[in-house]
Amino acid sequence: MPRRGAPSDAPQDIENLGTAVVDCGLYEDGKRRGGRIDLETALKQASECTDGFVWIGLHDPSPEILEKVAEHFELHPLAVEDAVHAHQRAKLDMYGESMFLVLKTARYVDHDELIEIGEVMIFVGQRFVVSVRHGEGSPLGEVRKELEAHSDLLSLGPSSVVYAIADRIVDDYALVLEGIEVDIEEVEAEVFSGAGTNPAERIYKLKREILEFRRAVSPLVTPMQRLSDHQAGLPIDPRTRDYFRDILDHLVRDSDRIQNFSEILTGVLQANLAQLGMRYNQDLRKLSAWVAIIAVPTMIAGIYGMNFDHMPELHWRYGYPLVLGVTLLICVALYRSFKRTGWL
Amino acid sequence: MPRRGAPSDAPQDIENLGTAVVDCGLYEDGKRRGGRIDLETALKQASECTDGFVWIGLHDPSPEILEKVAEHFELHPLAVEDAVHAHQRAKLDMYGESMFLVLKTARYVDHDELIEIGEVMIFVGQRFVVSVRHGEGSPLGEVRKELEAHSDLLSLGPSSVVYAIADRIVDDYALVLEGIEVDIEEVEAEVFSGAGTNPAERIYKLKREILEFRRAVSPLVTPMQRLSDHQAGLPIDPRTRDYFRDILDHLVRDSDRIQNFSEILTGVLQANLAQLGMRYNQDLRKLSAWVAIIAVPTMIAGIYGMNFDHMPELHWRYGYPLVLGVTLLICVALYRSFKRTGWL
Amino acid sequence: MPRRGAPSDAPQDIENLGTAVVDCGLYEDGKRRGGRIDLETALKQASECTDGFVWIGLHDPSPEILEKVAEHFELHPLAVEDAVHAHQRAKLDMYGESMFLVLKTARYVDHDELIEIGEVMIFVGQRFVVSVRHGEGSPLGEVRKELEAHSDLLSLGPSSVVYAIADRIVDDYALVLEGIEVDIEEVEAEVFSGAGTNPAERIYKLKREILEFRRAVSPLVTPMQRLSDHQAGLPIDPRTRDYFRDILDHLVRDSDRIQNFSEILTGVLQANLAQLGMRYNQDLRKLSAWVAIIAVPTMIAGIYGMNFDHMPELHWRYGYPLVLGVTLLICVALYRSFKRTGWL
Amino acid sequence: MPRRGAPSDAPQDIENLGTAVVDCGLYEDGKRRGGRIDLETALKQASECTDGFVWIGLHDPSPEILEKVAEHFELHPLAVEDAVHAHQRAKLDMYGESMFLVLKTARYVDHDELIEIGEVMIFVGQRFVVSVRHGEGSPLGEVRKELEAHSDLLSLGPSSVVYAIADRIVDDYALVLEGIEVDIEEVEAEVFSGAGTNPAERIYKLKREILEFRRAVSPLVTPMQRLSDHQAGLPIDPRTRDYFRDILDHLVRDSDRIQNFSEILTGVLQANLAQLGMRYNQDLRKLSAWVAIIAVPTMIAGIYGMNFDHMPELHWRYGYPLVLGVTLLICVALYRSFKRTGWL
Amino acid sequence: MPRRGAPSDAPQDIENLGTAVVDCGLYEDGKRRGGRIDLETALKQASECTDGFVWIGLHDPSPEILEKVAEHFELHPLAVEDAVHAHQRAKLDMYGESMFLVLKTARYVDHDELIEIGEVMIFVGQRFVVSVRHGEGSPLGEVRKELEAHSDLLSLGPSSVVYAIADRIVDDYALVLEGIEVDIEEVEAEVFSGAGTNPAERIYKLKREILEFRRAVSPLVTPMQRLSDHQAGLPIDPRTRDYFRDILDHLVRDSDRIQNFSEILTGVLQANLAQLGMRYNQDLRKLSAWVAIIAVPTMIAGIYGMNFDHMPELHWRYGYPLVLGVTLLICVALYRSFKRTGWL
Repeated sequence: MPRRGAPSDAPQDIENLGTAVVDCGLYEDGKRRGGRIDLETALKQASECTDGFVWIGLHDPSPEILEKVAEHFELHPLAVEDAVHAHQRAKLDMYGESMFLVLKTARYVDHDELIEIGEVMIFVGQRFVVSVRHGEGSPLGEVRKELEAHSDLLSLGPSSVVYAIADRIVDDYALVLEGIEVDIEEVEAEVFSGAGTNPAERIYKLKREILEFRRAVSPLVTPMQRLSDHQAGLPIDPRTRDYFRDILDHLVRDSDRIQNFSEILTGVLQANLAQLGMRYNQDLRKLSAWVAIIAVPTMIAGIYGMNFDHMPELHWRYGYPLVLGVTLLICVALYRSFKRTGWL
Repeated sequence: MPRRGAPSDAPQDIENLGTAVVDCGLYEDGKRRGGRIDLETALKQASECTDGFVWIGLHDPSPEILEKVAEHFELHPLAVEDAVHAHQRAKLDMYGESMFLVLKTARYVDHDELIEIGEVMIFVGQRFVVSVRHGEGSPLGEVRKELEAHSDLLSLGPSSVVYAIADRIVDDYALVLEGIEVDIEEVEAEVFSGAGTNPAERIYKLKREILEFRRAVSPLVTPMQRLSDHQAGLPIDPRTRDYFRDILDHLVRDSDRIQNFSEILTGVLQANLAQLGMRYNQDLRKLSAWVAIIAVPTMIAGIYGMNFDHMPELHWRYGYPLVLGVTLLICVALYRSFKRTGWL
Repeated sequence: MPRRGAPSDAPQDIENLGTAVVDCGLYEDGKRRGGRIDLETALKQASECTDGFVWIGLHDPSPEILEKVAEHFELHPLAVEDAVHAHQRAKLDMYGESMFLVLKTARYVDHDELIEIGEVMIFVGQRFVVSVRHGEGSPLGEVRKELEAHSDLLSLGPSSVVYAIADRIVDDYALVLEGIEVDIEEVEAEVFSGAGTNPAERIYKLKREILEFRRAVSPLVTPMQRLSDHQAGLPIDPRTRDYFRDILDHLVRDSDRIQNFSEILTGVLQANLAQLGMRYNQDLRKLSAWVAIIAVPTMIAGIYGMNFDHMPELHWRYGYPLVLGVTLLICVALYRSFKRTGWL
Repeated sequence: MPRRGAPSDAPQDIENLGTAVVDCGLYEDGKRRGGRIDLETALKQASECTDGFVWIGLHDPSPEILEKVAEHFELHPLAVEDAVHAHQRAKLDMYGESMFLVLKTARYVDHDELIEIGEVMIFVGQRFVVSVRHGEGSPLGEVRKELEAHSDLLSLGPSSVVYAIADRIVDDYALVLEGIEVDIEEVEAEVFSGAGTNPAERIYKLKREILEFRRAVSPLVTPMQRLSDHQAGLPIDPRTRDYFRDILDHLVRDSDRIQNFSEILTGVLQANLAQLGMRYNQDLRKLSAWVAIIAVPTMIAGIYGMNFDHMPELHWRYGYPLVLGVTLLICVALYRSFKRTGWL
Repeated sequence: MPRRGAPSDAPQDIENLGTAVVDCGLYEDGKRRGGRIDLETALKQASECTDGFVWIGLHDPSPEILEKVAEHFELHPLAVEDAVHAHQRAKLDMYGESMFLVLKTARYVDHDELIEIGEVMIFVGQRFVVSVRHGEGSPLGEVRKELEAHSDLLSLGPSSVVYAIADRIVDDYALVLEGIEVDIEEVEAEVFSGAGTNPAERIYKLKREILEFRRAVSPLVTPMQRLSDHQAGLPIDPRTRDYFRDILDHLVRDSDRIQNFSEILTGVLQANLAQLGMRYNQDLRKLSAWVAIIAVPTMIAGIYGMNFDHMPELHWRYGYPLVLGVTLLICVALYRSFKRTGWL
C-alpha cells in the first residue's frame, strides 16, 4: 500500500527548495512567456492558461516539493511515490488523463570505467510537464535551451518536451557506448599483446557494467514503441510520431550494440583465460626443459662420483675434460632439440 | 483425481485449531466491526452480511479446518487440495464465482545465505477472503493492521485485501534481493582480493538460491498482469487496477534483477575459477623456479664430486671457495632473472 | 505413406491376445455394468449402447488386435500406425469425430538412476475409449479402480477416463522428479565433500536423463492447454475443464522443475570440475613443496661431497653434525613457511 | 535480378538428358496411364489431359531441360533459378497458381560420420508435378512405385505426390538420427571408458554435422504447418490434411531429437575435456609421486657421500646395509602412503 | 532534436560535388532518356515528368548536396540526418508519401579477414529514387547497368531500383559468407592438424566479425518482410512482390548461415583450447617421464658414491660395469613401459 514520504524533516528540505526547482517556464505558441518564474507562479499560471503549458523542472527534489506539485496537478499517489523513491524501471503508465514516464539516464565515468545510472521521471498533462531528475546524468537545462530555440517543435505542446528529454537521454546512451567500445578495444589489445598482464578483473567489471546498462536501457523499448505507434489515450501530439520513432530507432540500435558488447566481452574473457593459460603452460614447459637439461650432467657426475675400485675412466689422463666435454655436448644437443620443438 | 486429505487424525488437529486460525474479522464500509471473532462467528457473519466482507486468516491449517471453511464457502475441491498440499506454482484460477490466487513468499536467512520460500493462498468471493499461509515468510498480521488503518482502501472490499497481501509479499522480494546483493558484493570482493580462499561453494549455493527464487517469482507475473489489466470475470474492484499495476511494475523490476544476479553469479563463478587457476599456476611456477635454482649448485657439486685422478681444480688452493662463489653468483643471477620476469 | 504392420506372424500374436487386452468394461451412469468383459463383447456393446461407453485397455498389443479395434471404431490408419510403432511425441490430434491423444509415461529406476519413458495412447469417441500402453510406466489398472470408485466423475463419460489417465501420468512425473532431486542432492554433497571422488559420469548421466525427460514432458503442455481451454471440436465434457487445468498447473510446475534441475546440473558439473581441478592443483603443489624441501639437503650434501683438497669444514671435528643440523634447520624452516602459506 | 543459367555448353547437357529425366508418367483416377513416357510426350499430355496429371521426375538436370519444362508450365523464373542453383532453404512459395516447394534430403554416410544434405524441389500445378532432385539422398523412384501401389492416395491428384515425397524425405531424417544416435553412444562409451583416447575431433565433427542438419531440417516446419493447416490458396487437396499433419508430427519430433543431440554433444564434449584433464592430472601426480620417492634415497646417499673426516656411521661394520635398509623402508612407507591416498 | 550538419566548410564540399554525385538518370517506360544528366537537370526533370522517374545516385555526399536534394523532394529532416550521419540500423521508415530504406553493405577483405560494413540509404517517392552509399561495399554503378538492360523490370518504376539495389547487397552477403567459410575451414584444419600453433586470436577475430556482420544483416529481415508482404502504404509496385520475397529467402538463408558460423566458431574455440591444453599436457608428461628416467641412475650413482668403509660391491672386479648395466636395464625398462602407456 502507498508509503508516504518521511513526514517532517521539512525545515531542512525547504532550504533546499531553491536548488531542487531547477527551472519553471510558461510556454505559449512555441515561445516562452515571462522568463524564469518561481514554482508558485508556475502552478498558478498552469491552472489559468488555456492555450500554452507550464514546464516545471525538478532535480533530486524533497518529498515536500513533489507532494505540493502533485497535489496541485492531482497526480496519482503511486506515481508520486515512484518519483520520490527512484530506482524504478523505465516505463510508461497512464493515470487517468495524465501520463507518467520513467527514463533511465546513463553517464560513462571513464576514469573508473563505471556507467552511472540516473533517472528522469516525467508527468505529462494537457497543460503541464513536470520533469524530475535523479542523479547527474543528462542535465535537462541544455535540453530546455535547445528546445526553446525550436519554436516549431515547442508549439506542439507538452509532447515536444517529452520528445526533447527522451531524445537527449537516448543520445547520451550512444556516448556511453562509445566510451565502452574504447575500453573494450584496449582490453582486447592487452589480451593479445603477449604482455603477460591479467585484465580479468577489468573485463569482469566491464561485463557487469554492461549488464547493468542493458537492464536500464532495454525496458525503455516498450514505452518508446507506444509513443511512436501513437496508441490511443496518450496525451501526445500525433505530429511527434516520427520523432519518437527516430528515438526508437536509435534505442534499438543501442540495444543491439549492448548485446553485441556483452557477447564480445564473454569472448574476451574466454580469450584472456586461454591466453594466460597458454602462457603459464609455456613458462612451465620452459622451466621443465631447463630442469631436464641440468639433470643430465648431474646424473653423469653422479656416476663418476661412485667409489668403485675399478673404474678405468677415472684414471685416464683426459677422462675429466672428456666427460665434461661429452656432457656439455649432450646438454647443447638437448638445448637445440628443445629450441627446435619450440619448448625453449 | 482429487486426493482427499489424510482422513482422521482429527483430534490432534482440533487442538491446533486455535493457532491455525490467526485472525478473523468482519469489515464494513472500510471499518472493522466487532474486533477479533472466532471462526464459527466469522462463517456465520459471512453468510449474513449483505454489504461488508469477512477476512479469515489461516496459518499452516490442518486439512480439517480448511475442509470446514471450504464447505461453508463452497470452494472447489481441487483448489482446497492445492491449499492443503502447498508446493503450488504462483497462479490465479477462477472456479465459478470465486478466485483462487497462489503467491510465493520469500525470506532471506542471511546467516545461512538461504532464501526460504513459503506460500500464501487466497480464496476470494463476494463476501469473503480466506488467506492461507504456509511457512514463515511475509506474516500477514501486520498487513491486516496496516490495511485497517486505510479505510479508503478497505472500503473497496475483498480486492483491497488481495492488493495488501500481494503488495507486502512483492515488497518482501526486494528485501531478499538486497540481502543477496550484499552477499554477491562480498563474494566479488573475495574473488578479486588475492586472499587465496576459494568461495566456489558459496557462489554455487547463491546461484542455486537465485534459481529457486526465480522459479518462485516469475510465474507470478501472469496473474499480476491479469489483475492489473482487470480482465473480465475476476471479482476485483476496477478501482484497484492502478494498485495492481504498481505491484506488477515492482515484480517485473525484481525479475530483471534476479536475471541480472543470475548472470552476475555465472560471471563470478568463472572469474573465481580463473583467479584460482592463475594463483595456483603462479605458485607452481614459483616453486619450479626455486627447484631450478637449487638444481644448479647440485649439478656443480656433483661435478666436483667425481673421482677422476686428474682434476686440476681440485688441487687449487682456492678451488673450493672459488667454486662456491661462482655457484652462488649463478644462483643470484638466476634469482634476479626470475624476479625480473615475474616468476618469483 | 501409411506403413502397414508386419503382415502375418499372427498365430503367435493371438496367443498373446489375452495378456495384451488388460481389461474391458462398459460404463453407464457412472457405474460399471457387467464386470470384466472380453474384447468381442466390448466391441459389440460399444456399438449397441446409447448412453454409456466402453473402455478397452490394451498393453503392448500386437498390430492385429489394434487393427481389429481400429476397424470396429473406424480409427484413422495414421493414428493406428502411430499407436503400433510408439515413439511418438505427446500430442493431441483430431481425426474426424475421434480424438487421438499421446502421452509419455515416466518411471524412475532409482538403482540405475534412469528415467524409463513409456507411452500411453488414447483413442476417444462418443461411446468408447481405447487406451494403449507401451512400457512399464504408470499402470492403468489402478487408475481404472480409482475412477470406478468416483461415479460422479465417471458419469461425465469418456472425458473422465482421459482425465484420470492424464492425471495419473502427470502425478507420476512428480515422483520421478523427487527421485532425481534426491540424487542431485547426493551428487552436490559428494562434489563439495572434499572426498576426492569424481562423480562426473554420474552427473553427466543425470543431465542426459533430464534432457530425455524434458523432451517427453514439454510437448504435453500444448495438448493439456487445449483440453483445459476446452477448444471447440474436442469430444470433451466442458465440466472436466477445471480438472484438466489442474493437470496443466502440475505439468507446468514440473516443467519448471525440470528446467531448474537441468540448470542446477550444469552448475554441479562446473563445480565438480572446479573442485577436482583445485584438489589436483593442491596435491601437485604439496608434492612440489616436498620435492623442494628434499632438494636442499641433496644440494648441501653434494657440496660436501666435492673432492677439493682444501675444504676446511671437512676436517672440523663437528663439521658433520653441524652440517646435518643446519640442513635440518633449513628444512624445518622451509616446512614451516610452506605450512604457513597453505602449501602443505 | 534473375541470373540466367550458364548459356551454351548445351551439347554436353543434351547427351545427359536421358539420365537427368528419371521418369515421366501420366496419372488418371489413381492409375498410371501408358507406362513410362518421354519428356516431350509428358509435356504434351499435361496440356491435353483434363482430369489426371503428369509427374515429371528430374535428377540433377541441366539448366536447358529445366528451362524447357519451365517454359511449358509457365513456371516463375525466380523459382526456376532456385531449382537450378540449389542450396536453397526449405520453403514453400506460391507463384500465381503454381506452388514451389523446396525440401532438404539427408543421408547418413556412416563410414565418414557425415550427413549428406541434398535437395528436392517440387513444382505443383493443377495438372502437373515436377520434382527436381539434387544429390544422392532420398531417391524418388521407390516413392513413385509405392505411390502407384496406393491408387486411393494417387487419386487425390498432385497433392498425393507432394505428400509421398515429403513423407519419404522426413522418414529418411529418422534414419539419419538413428545413425547419429549410435555414434553418440559410441563416443559416450569411449569418453567414460578410461581408455585414454581423445575423441575430441570426432565429437566436434558430429556436433558440426548436427548443426548442419538442424539448419536443413528446421526451416521445413513452417511449410509443413502451412500444408497441414491447409491455408487457403495452396493447390492442395483438403483430404491430404491429416497426412501432412502426420509428417509435421514426425518433423517436430525429429527437430526435438536434433536439439537434444546437440545438447548431449555439448555435454559429451565437456565431459571428454574433464575426463582427459583428470587423467592427465592423475598421470602427472603419479609421476611426481615417483620422483618424490626416488628423491629420498638420492638425498640420503648424498649425505653419506660427503667427505667429512669424522662421520662415525661410515666406519660402522653394518653402516652400509643399515642405511640401505632404512632408505628402503622409508621408500616403502612413502609408496604405501601414496597408494593409500590414491596418488599411485 | 534534429542536429543540422556542420554549417559552412562548404567550399571544399562543392569541389567534391562531382565525385559525390555518381550518376543521375531519367527513366521512362523502362528505358533511360537522355543519358547521364547532372544533378540540377535531374531535379528539374523529376518535378516535370509525369510518367517516368529520376534515379539520383550519391556516394559519400556532403551534407550540402543532401540538403539540396532533400529540400527539392521535401524529404523528412530526420531521415536526411540519418543519411548524413550513417551508422544507422537497417530499417524501413515511411515519412508521409516517401519511403526511407537503410541497408548495410558488406565486403570481405580476405587479406585482413575483416568484414567491411558500409551503408546504402534509399529515398523513394512516386517520381524519384535517391540512393546514398557510404563506404566501399556493393558499388551501385553495375546495378544501374544491369537494371538498364532489363527494361521489363525498369518499367515497374522506382520499386525496380529498390529491388535491384537490395538484391545486389544481399547477393554480396553470400560472397562474404563464402569468404568466411573458407577461413573457418582453414582454422578447423589448423586446430586438428597437430601443428602446435595457436590460432586463438584468429578465431576470436573471426567470431567478432561474425557478430558485427549479424548485427548488420539481421535487422534487414523485417523491412524485407514488409516489402515482400506488400503492406499497404508503401510506394512499391505489387508486381515486385515475388522479387522481394526472393531476396527475403536469401536473406533468411544467410542469417541461418551466420548463426551457424557463430556456433561453429564457438565450437572451434573450445576445440582449440582443448587441443592446445592436451598438447601441453602431453609435452609436460613426456618431460616428466624423462626426468623420472634420469632420476634412477642419479639415485643409484649416489648410493655407490657413499663413503662407507664396508661396501663390498665397490671392490668387485666387475662391480662398476655391472651397476652401469643394471642401471641401463632399468632405464630401458622404464622407457619401454612409458612408451607402452603412451607417455613417451
